[in-house]
Amino acid sequence: MPVPGPGYSITVRVEAPPSASAAGDLASAIGRAGGVITAFDVVESHADRIVVDITCNALSADHASDITDRLGELPGVKVRKISDRTFLVHLGGKIEVSSRVALANRDDLSRAYTPGVARVCTAIAENPEDARRLTIKRNSVAVVTDGSAVLGLGNIGPEAALPVMEGKAALFKKFAGVNAWPVCLDTQDTEEIIRAVELIAPVYGGINLEDIAAPRCFEIEARLRDKLNIPVFHDDQHGTAIVVLGALRNALRVVGKNIEDCRIVVCGVGAAGSAIIRLLQHKKPADIIAVDIDGIVHSGRGDEDENLRSIAAGTNVDGRTGTLSDAVNGADVFIGVSAPNLLSGDDVATMHDDAIVFALANPDPEIDPLEAQQHAKVVATGRSDYPNQINNVLAFPGFFRGLLDAHAHEITDDMMIAASNAIADVVDGEERVNPSFIVPSVFDTTVAPAVAEAVRKAAIAGRTEQPSHGGSSMPWSMAEDLDY
Amino acid sequence: MPVPGPGYSITVRVEAPPSASAAGDLASAIGRAGGVITAFDVVESHADRIVVDITCNALSADHASDITDRLGELPGVKVRKISDRTFLVHLGGKIEVSSRVALANRDDLSRAYTPGVARVCTAIAENPEDARRLTIKRNSVAVVTDGSAVLGLGNIGPEAALPVMEGKAALFKKFAGVNAWPVCLDTQDTEEIIRAVELIAPVYGGINLEDIAAPRCFEIEARLRDKLNIPVFHDDQHGTAIVVLGALRNALRVVGKNIEDCRIVVCGVGAAGSAIIRLLQHKKPADIIAVDIDGIVHSGRGDEDENLRSIAAGTNVDGRTGTLSDAVNGADVFIGVSAPNLLSGDDVATMHDDAIVFALANPDPEIDPLEAQQHAKVVATGRSDYPNQINNVLAFPGFFRGLLDAHAHEITDDMMIAASNAIADVVDGEERVNPSFIVPSVFDTTVAPAVAEAVRKAAIAGRTEQPSHGGSSMPWSMAEDLDY
Repeated sequence: MPVPGPGYSITVRVEAPPSASAAGDLASAIGRAGGVITAFDVVESHADRIVVDITCNALSADHASDITDRLGELPGVKVRKISDRTFLVHLGGKIEVSSRVALANRDDLSRAYTPGVARVCTAIAENPEDARRLTIKRNSVAVVTDGSAVLGLGNIGPEAALPVMEGKAALFKKFAGVNAWPVCLDTQDTEEIIRAVELIAPVYGGINLEDIAAPRCFEIEARLRDKLNIPVFHDDQHGTAIVVLGALRNALRVVGKNIEDCRIVVCGVGAAGSAIIRLLQHKKPADIIAVDIDGIVHSGRGDEDENLRSIAAGTNVDGRTGTLSDAVNGADVFIGVSAPNLLSGDDVATMHDDAIVFALANPDPEIDPLEAQQHAKVVATGRSDYPNQINNVLAFPGFFRGLLDAHAHEITDDMMIAASNAIADVVDGEERVNPSFIVPSVFDTTVAPAVAEAVRKAAIAGRTEQPSHGGSSMPWSMAEDLDY
Repeated sequence: MPVPGPGYSITVRVEAPPSASAAGDLASAIGRAGGVITAFDVVESHADRIVVDITCNALSADHASDITDRLGELPGVKVRKISDRTFLVHLGGKIEVSSRVALANRDDLSRAYTPGVARVCTAIAENPEDARRLTIKRNSVAVVTDGSAVLGLGNIGPEAALPVMEGKAALFKKFAGVNAWPVCLDTQDTEEIIRAVELIAPVYGGINLEDIAAPRCFEIEARLRDKLNIPVFHDDQHGTAIVVLGALRNALRVVGKNIEDCRIVVCGVGAAGSAIIRLLQHKKPADIIAVDIDGIVHSGRGDEDENLRSIAAGTNVDGRTGTLSDAVNGADVFIGVSAPNLLSGDDVATMHDDAIVFALANPDPEIDPLEAQQHAKVVATGRSDYPNQINNVLAFPGFFRGLLDAHAHEITDDMMIAASNAIADVVDGEERVNPSFIVPSVFDTTVAPAVAEAVRKAAIAGRTEQPSHGGSSMPWSMAEDLDY
């Protein structure tokens, strides 16, 4: 049941008669049309008219149009302009590049540009590792997509994907001070994507793959991890898995179960589902049952897809077959990363006592959370309008912050598990874990630094040798590496 | 003759005895060593010692090392730390990515990210031209290099080139508000470079090629201009040519000559020289003589290089042969974009009266400007320590600002000539054109806007059809396109 929301917020500038009732009339008209007013400003006041900016939330684009029409129908009222706040926020893009150095005079230019910069170039030419100290490589991530699997919109291509990538970059900066830059590739060929990322890699300390469709995303990530000496992370896979693992740890505490005793159903075996399964396997649950559009995944199914065969081999200890309903019958945990309306309240009622249901399909979950709540002990979704929002933004900013600070070359499962624990640990301060609070709020500013620290430590602990700081070409003892 | 400069500025922290003469002793030691003190700060004062930060300019890295050694030799003085200000300025990179939108609460996120952003993506998917309004494509330029011809350092590769590209991006933002992002490609293969730029193009409103060696740069620029619907500009070619043309117009005013009566020698037929010749041809000088390492370029030379053949066909009306000295004998203008110490004072003395000499080889010009000054009327270099600095920063920021504001798809010679005129026009305000003032200062903030306006107008005038603003998928009447 949709409610008017900020995603459909418009500001309408109207002229109205200068009567005492004008404001009330306008507000009432919007209310009758089902809009929710959030701001009302008289911007001009004349003898013969007033000019008012009214901001309100609507249900949809059509509804917003309807509200505007109704305003214009009021006697003496003229609609002058309509601004859609979402579109306004996007005008000219959501990110920008700024200089971090002064450029006010010749001295500044001589250090930041010619001739001083030449010495810095020479130092890096002699010792390429210095790029990670002396350039943005220290603190930059490419957000790479081909636009083939964007949000709930599917294959919309690189230009249309750009607003999402800009948003991602804005979040990287806000939560972890990471400089992220959109790379929207005009190809969907696996080989071209891999080669393009290889070619642009010198500028970056890490690569974040985003919204690239399965199964191409698996090969692309694996081969790039092989080729590059900087970490490569497909957020749709691992960001989701990290947050799910952290949320699950807390949910299990709430219901008082050990994971080793639990049967976990993972519905959806795309990017997110596959990565969740892989990370879960480290925790050695009693069983994992994977379910896709053809039902329960098992070895006897004859799947040709490499990913499915691998999952079949590593899950479903009893070789169960059947539907999603069969899978969840008696299960302890349901994790859905698939599509809306696949799970019913009756299904949840067949689960084990104190069931945990993560219905994460976006924007509409596998089951109405209110319905799930009637049978399960702990319910989580990806939505911001219900408790327990499982959102990748809890993971990726801090994760990359940690990778960059550790000058990491690769990503291991240990680092991801460390990140998931850091997220779970945040929910244990003054407020204790409870059925409506298993993950921190996305606006909790302690999350990213905690994740960063955990990842940084895990990265350094995992090294067989300490990073070498000797052999640098920098001629002088340097100030300590900057902390961000 | 080098002088201590800010490019070799160090800050030395020393402990010294707490005597009345300590400060003087330290300063004198630096002076005797040939350093130039620019700052002196007592940062700690104790009964047994003082701690002083001394900042000074040196001649070179070795010289700075020498100065520090001499300080340490003073009785009771201990050098605690040496910071190289050039390296300090580069720590962590010189640019950053910032959000332009608020992300403080769920309403903000709902507009800048999900779910609101999905509508913006859909609008662009339906009408790709809207990307130029609704994303950073409105205001972004890729600074693309392969690191094969960086400054005076030559082929140092992509990581080592990055500090220069960052500096370029910082200048783009400072002077014209353009968001420029470094793209340092890990290949020098022409086909791979072309394909890589094609693949990353969706994010950008323009491409600035930088420090890519001739002759590959010609083919790369030409083929990218063919393939892309955004403008492609090799700054080493055209930025230089634009500023030279503008400076030359003013220099000819100073000496009272018409270009149609002038013989112009262009020394150096690489990226810059070729572009200068091409732009000069629009002005129809009496003659252009191109000179390269093998002497005067003429059709009888049997050059196989396509660029040289084209230049031979379009210059040197009398088919002259010989050396650079032969070429400048009786010439009105010398433009050098080649190498140091190719031109002598005697050569300049053989030029026509009121000669104009642009000796632009970097960092050491074709002739010592003081020597050239003895025979020529107007002398310019690329150096900041002499008058008439011809620097591409006068051109590229405003040029791209104009291209982006015009939503331009291509670059024409008309636009470049318009830019050169705008630069020349700036030098006619309160100060009039004179032999020491033929181009504006790089810090003159009126230059970029003037260039931008000229380019924007030229771009729009050159269109056969007006840009279409109808057919947009944006559902509402939009606020005016942002001015930057």
